[in-house]
Amino acid sequence: MIYEVANIQVKVGTGPLFEQRFSQALPLFKRARGCNSARLERSVEHPDRYLVVIGWQTLDDHVVAFRTSNDYALWRELVGDFFAAPPIVDHTEVVVSGF
Amino acid sequence: MIYEVANIQVKVGTGPLFEQRFSQALPLFKRARGCNSARLERSVEHPDRYLVVIGWQTLDDHVVAFRTSNDYALWRELVGDFFAAPPIVDHTEVVVSGF
Repeated sequence: MIYEVANIQVKVGTGPLFEQRFSQALPLFKRARGCNSARLERSVEHPDRYLVVIGWQTLDDHVVAFRTSNDYALWRELVGDFFAAPPIVDHTEVVVSGF
Repeated sequence: MIYEVANIQVKVGTGPLFEQRFSQALPLFKRARGCNSARLERSVEHPDRYLVVIGWQTLDDHVVAFRTSNDYALWRELVGDFFAAPPIVDHTEVVVSGF
């Protein structure tokens, strides 16, 4: 189980619409192979910055299967216009699950 | 409920010891006012990079109460030597809790 963590800076003032579109996009993730969870976090200090946090069973489920799918194109169509810069994407795995 | 998300780059090769120290530090968070959760994530692409993700009831529980506590000094004593650069800390709140 890994997390895709995408840092997204949206164009100033477009946050509320971006959040709406993210909600609309949830079914794309829900039906994606190996996708376990999806949530959107907004920065407290910089409200135009977001973290998209998606749980995947394997790295390939995200970077191979999802990114080459039609649903990926739909996802970008829904949210891509709001990006002020290309998202910075990392993947993480939980190494200490404290409490 | 907010998350403290700290991006930490550790000195090359010190990851395993840093992870051990993080585990040792868990009681400090467990007893901190307003602390709900604590976990450590490691980057898949860059294994010297970590995300420390701590759940707090309020921003003040972290930046006022915890950061001025003796336990904060203990936390830094346990892990500070491993940092290759000052941690980059952000706070987020979940705005879309998909699934």
